[in-house]
Amino acid sequence: MFLPKQILEKKLQLLLTEDIGQGDITTGLLISEKTKVEAEIIAKEAGIIAGIEETKTLLNSLNLQDEPLVVDGEKIQPQQILLKIYGNAQVILTVERTLLNIISRMSGIATITYKLIKKIKDAKIKVKVACTRKTAPGLLYFDKKAVLIGGGDTHRLHLDDLILIKDNHIAIVGDIKKAILNLKEKSSFSKKIEIETSDIKDVLTSSEAGADIIMLDNFSPKQIKQTIKILKKEGFYGKILLEASGGITTKNILDFASTGVDIVSLSAITNSVKSLDVNLEIIKRTN
Amino acid sequence: MFLPKQILEKKLQLLLTEDIGQGDITTGLLISEKTKVEAEIIAKEAGIIAGIEETKTLLNSLNLQDEPLVVDGEKIQPQQILLKIYGNAQVILTVERTLLNIISRMSGIATITYKLIKKIKDAKIKVKVACTRKTAPGLLYFDKKAVLIGGGDTHRLHLDDLILIKDNHIAIVGDIKKAILNLKEKSSFSKKIEIETSDIKDVLTSSEAGADIIMLDNFSPKQIKQTIKILKKEGFYGKILLEASGGITTKNILDFASTGVDIVSLSAITNSVKSLDVNLEIIKRTN
Amino acid sequence: MFLPKQILEKKLQLLLTEDIGQGDITTGLLISEKTKVEAEIIAKEAGIIAGIEETKTLLNSLNLQDEPLVVDGEKIQPQQILLKIYGNAQVILTVERTLLNIISRMSGIATITYKLIKKIKDAKIKVKVACTRKTAPGLLYFDKKAVLIGGGDTHRLHLDDLILIKDNHIAIVGDIKKAILNLKEKSSFSKKIEIETSDIKDVLTSSEAGADIIMLDNFSPKQIKQTIKILKKEGFYGKILLEASGGITTKNILDFASTGVDIVSLSAITNSVKSLDVNLEIIKRTN
Amino acid sequence: MFLPKQILEKKLQLLLTEDIGQGDITTGLLISEKTKVEAEIIAKEAGIIAGIEETKTLLNSLNLQDEPLVVDGEKIQPQQILLKIYGNAQVILTVERTLLNIISRMSGIATITYKLIKKIKDAKIKVKVACTRKTAPGLLYFDKKAVLIGGGDTHRLHLDDLILIKDNHIAIVGDIKKAILNLKEKSSFSKKIEIETSDIKDVLTSSEAGADIIMLDNFSPKQIKQTIKILKKEGFYGKILLEASGGITTKNILDFASTGVDIVSLSAITNSVKSLDVNLEIIKRTN
Amino acid sequence: MFLPKQILEKKLQLLLTEDIGQGDITTGLLISEKTKVEAEIIAKEAGIIAGIEETKTLLNSLNLQDEPLVVDGEKIQPQQILLKIYGNAQVILTVERTLLNIISRMSGIATITYKLIKKIKDAKIKVKVACTRKTAPGLLYFDKKAVLIGGGDTHRLHLDDLILIKDNHIAIVGDIKKAILNLKEKSSFSKKIEIETSDIKDVLTSSEAGADIIMLDNFSPKQIKQTIKILKKEGFYGKILLEASGGITTKNILDFASTGVDIVSLSAITNSVKSLDVNLEIIKRTN
Amino acid sequence: MFLPKQILEKKLQLLLTEDIGQGDITTGLLISEKTKVEAEIIAKEAGIIAGIEETKTLLNSLNLQDEPLVVDGEKIQPQQILLKIYGNAQVILTVERTLLNIISRMSGIATITYKLIKKIKDAKIKVKVACTRKTAPGLLYFDKKAVLIGGGDTHRLHLDDLILIKDNHIAIVGDIKKAILNLKEKSSFSKKIEIETSDIKDVLTSSEAGADIIMLDNFSPKQIKQTIKILKKEGFYGKILLEASGGITTKNILDFASTGVDIVSLSAITNSVKSLDVNLEIIKRTN
Repeated sequence: MFLPKQILEKKLQLLLTEDIGQGDITTGLLISEKTKVEAEIIAKEAGIIAGIEETKTLLNSLNLQDEPLVVDGEKIQPQQILLKIYGNAQVILTVERTLLNIISRMSGIATITYKLIKKIKDAKIKVKVACTRKTAPGLLYFDKKAVLIGGGDTHRLHLDDLILIKDNHIAIVGDIKKAILNLKEKSSFSKKIEIETSDIKDVLTSSEAGADIIMLDNFSPKQIKQTIKILKKEGFYGKILLEASGGITTKNILDFASTGVDIVSLSAITNSVKSLDVNLEIIKRTN
Repeated sequence: MFLPKQILEKKLQLLLTEDIGQGDITTGLLISEKTKVEAEIIAKEAGIIAGIEETKTLLNSLNLQDEPLVVDGEKIQPQQILLKIYGNAQVILTVERTLLNIISRMSGIATITYKLIKKIKDAKIKVKVACTRKTAPGLLYFDKKAVLIGGGDTHRLHLDDLILIKDNHIAIVGDIKKAILNLKEKSSFSKKIEIETSDIKDVLTSSEAGADIIMLDNFSPKQIKQTIKILKKEGFYGKILLEASGGITTKNILDFASTGVDIVSLSAITNSVKSLDVNLEIIKRTN
Repeated sequence: MFLPKQILEKKLQLLLTEDIGQGDITTGLLISEKTKVEAEIIAKEAGIIAGIEETKTLLNSLNLQDEPLVVDGEKIQPQQILLKIYGNAQVILTVERTLLNIISRMSGIATITYKLIKKIKDAKIKVKVACTRKTAPGLLYFDKKAVLIGGGDTHRLHLDDLILIKDNHIAIVGDIKKAILNLKEKSSFSKKIEIETSDIKDVLTSSEAGADIIMLDNFSPKQIKQTIKILKKEGFYGKILLEASGGITTKNILDFASTGVDIVSLSAITNSVKSLDVNLEIIKRTN
Repeated sequence: MFLPKQILEKKLQLLLTEDIGQGDITTGLLISEKTKVEAEIIAKEAGIIAGIEETKTLLNSLNLQDEPLVVDGEKIQPQQILLKIYGNAQVILTVERTLLNIISRMSGIATITYKLIKKIKDAKIKVKVACTRKTAPGLLYFDKKAVLIGGGDTHRLHLDDLILIKDNHIAIVGDIKKAILNLKEKSSFSKKIEIETSDIKDVLTSSEAGADIIMLDNFSPKQIKQTIKILKKEGFYGKILLEASGGITTKNILDFASTGVDIVSLSAITNSVKSLDVNLEIIKRTN
Repeated sequence: MFLPKQILEKKLQLLLTEDIGQGDITTGLLISEKTKVEAEIIAKEAGIIAGIEETKTLLNSLNLQDEPLVVDGEKIQPQQILLKIYGNAQVILTVERTLLNIISRMSGIATITYKLIKKIKDAKIKVKVACTRKTAPGLLYFDKKAVLIGGGDTHRLHLDDLILIKDNHIAIVGDIKKAILNLKEKSSFSKKIEIETSDIKDVLTSSEAGADIIMLDNFSPKQIKQTIKILKKEGFYGKILLEASGGITTKNILDFASTGVDIVSLSAITNSVKSLDVNLEIIKRTN
Repeated sequence: MFLPKQILEKKLQLLLTEDIGQGDITTGLLISEKTKVEAEIIAKEAGIIAGIEETKTLLNSLNLQDEPLVVDGEKIQPQQILLKIYGNAQVILTVERTLLNIISRMSGIATITYKLIKKIKDAKIKVKVACTRKTAPGLLYFDKKAVLIGGGDTHRLHLDDLILIKDNHIAIVGDIKKAILNLKEKSSFSKKIEIETSDIKDVLTSSEAGADIIMLDNFSPKQIKQTIKILKKEGFYGKILLEASGGITTKNILDFASTGVDIVSLSAITNSVKSLDVNLEIIKRTN
């Protein structure tokens, strides 16, 4: 998900613009335009930091100097200084909240993603942890990138990069087998085909029809294991990717991860984010 | 925060556009352009619903018919049908996720806001519950509106609608009294002036200088009570609005709310949102 | 109304883009791309200069060097050189008209604002001079900022930063008292409440109901004085801000300003602007 | 300058969006979303109306019904009802100021343009009255269209639709003759070539070199007459268009218009606009 | 690649806006705003039609009625009427060229794509014909959709929907095997991995490392056959998709298509488009 | 058609943004952010180069260094190095395709334009070669600029810079003479008036009515010569510009060019472009 800085900068300045309105009236009246300061962004709690790249890009685009002390993905501790900022005080005070909102949301996502993956690694299980398209509306780029930084899998980036036949598609077209065969014929060779299934019968039909990935939606760990047993018997296991989805939480994730699936996916890591607390502090005037 | 539908529609279509990319490849290949369906948006858990206005606006802007069964701010139950949708199946399947992301975030915010306010009302306390500018980046409009629906106070809408002297302003200008007097002279008569304070001394100085609102930042309930006692003695209490902020959680909110302040403000209701779970289900083909 | 340069730059480049169309065909064919020149912006008449910040920002964003000889708000004389520009001749010739249009409009606004305020100060009256939202459409930022530079009060920056109950609101809701009480209950603590009134009765009702600001709309100076006499008697004077509005001109402004109101507001300073005449002259080639 | 409504609508909604900010907080809290009203736009002074097309387009784009009682270019009287509006009260109150700002500026421009042209017609002179590119920044479309409605000539719409060699171009390239010959060779056959001249010598050189239009910049009426005498002698008069520009005011326009030039151009009609006073009044609730 | 009409409409109106500039001056002055006409879009040559959906969407968005007589993908003949248009004459004349430019480019692409595929089908070969990202800059959506209508494969829609390791990536990272293994570990499970190869050795290494698709870049048909022979021997043939690319023309396409590859891709169908000639004719006034 | 770099940069970055989507996933995972490289853009075939200015502008806007070895309009040979690029490898790989698409399209247009003009010059004929508005949709700026680089005439840049009465206008208004007289009266003095004609009668009527330019649409070379004979007899030849249009190809262009017309115009040079083949090659790592 590499984006040239100058393109990313446009996304970031749009976020800033909404927050400013017609101008920061407090700063405009109170702070002289010649004042320069040194400021620090400081963590208030432990976690995995994300949004440093975005912070640097936004600061630089506003002609502020940055001196990052951490990199995205790094483990941080409470009171740790993350980044020093030098430059025009008016600009720093005006961009403060937008910056912190970006870092705290992205770090919140990276932190929970990392924790889940660590739990799985500690249990010696090899399974990918993926997010879904259930993000804050409009923040797909930032939310997906934070998942990546936390070690997770971004899943679909939007509706054009994976064929994913969901329950609502099937509710309309009816026949799973026909749907998959049809899509294998008509879709681009460059895309994988995934299908959402709700029982073993559909899993088998989808396997036979040639799906690349099968989502086991709202299957219990036990049901997943039974399904895998049958898939092994039929010779499909290992040839098709299996994604467990639905009902997976930070508490029960190992139960799902240990079933033999390739991927477990959770929406909570991007749509129920607990922000990581970070602060900006003016350290001193530098002129 | 009234916005004509056609202006709101532009915000909403931007959110949708990011999610679609170059087009929904699954729906484009699988569903005929003539297929019409009836669908329902269904709650999966209880809470206070928000985002219905946004949903209607987005649906209508895409030429889909809506039949809302609830209004924003209404209490909803699990399995309750919130809204019926009629129209082109391709469009419904393409907009599904964006719609649900909006409703689930806004309802999550409205629900927690409502719960906090109910707690306070049940305790027979009269105090406003406000959010801050700590929202998801770029989602100020949606997050603030959800707070409003939950019964909360929107606080500043952006940096141009209230003079708010924060700790970082004071770190630069130094003298609180001079700052307030200066702003009272130079700022527009149409704005209130608020100042963030960290001890009783600053509260008194700010009161004397003529601030309209004083934020007691990270004061304990005990410190707040002491402060109020002094303000009463000095004759300021009742003439200046007092906002308690910092360290307030859903658990300890009553301790703060009962101190005699006018407003308690929390960032968690907009920056650590637990989404309300909602679903879209295709009910049947209608042609 | 502080805006980071990079955000202001976007507004300015939009104005430039409209003027250019597909490209400056005269300059493209006539001037070599390597030609560098020195140019000057020169005042053709006396006044208060504004738009220097905007000019510097636009010039810098186009990679032109500026050497300002005046600052915004300064008194200037005919033939005074305001700013020197160095750089690519094609760019200077292409941006010339947009730059001059910005300076001449903003300076026209600052000049008349300053004159009105000087008249008031010379008469030893202490009253604020405010503009309204009657600006050139789409130029709120520039018009309001020019008023500020001239020493005036910006009043509302847009429809979200002050509760202002206008005659047309009252025409619908009817009851003034109920309207104010309702808004005091429901509006954010961070906003003031102003109401437009047309007679003494409404002024008193509004004062009792708790309005922060009362606009005396189309009151004659005599009526204003009578109103103030009553407000004094009732104990409201000094506690509520009074804004005289309607029918105020550069000629009669002292009659209104001397009545005892806190603010006089005029729409003419932003919607009937006499541009200040300024020119750009190429001084010499520098390569 | 025909623009499809749906394209014009985008320009208009941008103007509205700036004025609204995050939403009309007064209207949102005070007026019920179901309230429907009838409103009228009423002239407060006499003049030539413009902006009716823009008003209709913006109203319709917001789903409001319009009933125009005048057309653009019509003479109007004080207290004349210009347009009736029916529909949602919240929307009408929110769009009121933007609408009036558009009508009052455009009508101000159309009115002064019309008056100048009438003066010329009454004197039985046949000469075109043109505006320049000295408009409010960013309002080229609206200002030029208002000139057209007032009967004037729009001159260049932007920098790509006429070759216009200005004094600053000549300051760089030096040789007028070479410049014109060069441009006749290299410019598109679809464009005319105009040159700004400051003395008779340049006028003759330009005529000989083949300019289509010659601007007599800051020539007195007497100088213009002498110039025309010489052009007649040399056989150029009638073959080249002559534009008098600079120093022309509403007072002295006949002196210039009667010299024999084809066009007189003034910047004041678009950059020193006196707004025409118009009001919007809520007439009654309709539900 | 399904896009809701209202999103597509925005792309289309942007194209129109560039063409119009400040307005259609001919139509504005010549045609009355009340004139309504019937018009027809007529083919001037045979081919496969594309752009009908875009035409309908743009017409409807401008409030014009359409009556399409063909559907996208249909074979058309010279002089065949493709679509009837009813409505405002000014709008039809203003949008004419933009509409025709869209149809003629998209149909040009669909026609050549169809011809190539027909040639392959007639030869009883089963191979996909794909385009590349070599489109007209900025027209990815339209060019890819036209390929789809012609029966072709869209390949990557942008840089985020397929891992494609190109020669320039390898020039930097060096080791093909390591690159693929690395990407299989780190990339999302939802994406396929393709690699561009230039000799048999690289093909084998890539096959062993687990690439999903191998591009045989600038291989002659003979080289491709040899490669396939080896892949069969090694047991990879049939498990990995093979894409022949480079040097493929409309003349030699069968030589490549008959080698046993899964896909042949050509850039010429989108970057060297011969437009299909279509016309718009006003048939009659309808009022 | 001079456009300041910073305005052109915005057009270019929009083209890039469409191609990237949410980010270049291959480059992001494979190439380290610290890698710097030297790259070259190399011609694969002979022609006239165009797009170098655009390439430099886009590269610089992304903070990449460029070292152009050719200038726009220069004749290039196969294998010739056109431009060297130095800088961040991730950015170069991400922008590669957009850059090449721009150069190859613009150079294709410049090359065919140049060839046609050379043919005419070699035949010692003095006639302009113009393009039309039949460009790739949305690429007017780039296509017109490429024509200019090839030595051609850009014709109308959009619908606001020349009065051009087309067959469809006449189909509605009927009377050619009236149309021209009407437009001469009402249109701006700054615009020329052109009319599309289909027979000698219309040509004469248009000449008498005072058109500046007459388009001879779909006249054979023989018909054109007859028309010119008559125009000479009537004294119009040499006073009105004549544009031959319709049915002109690279093969028969001399037949039209030698008839005595001033301009021949062809749509094929912009709407049926054969791209010039260019490549980007990574030469070496530089760090």
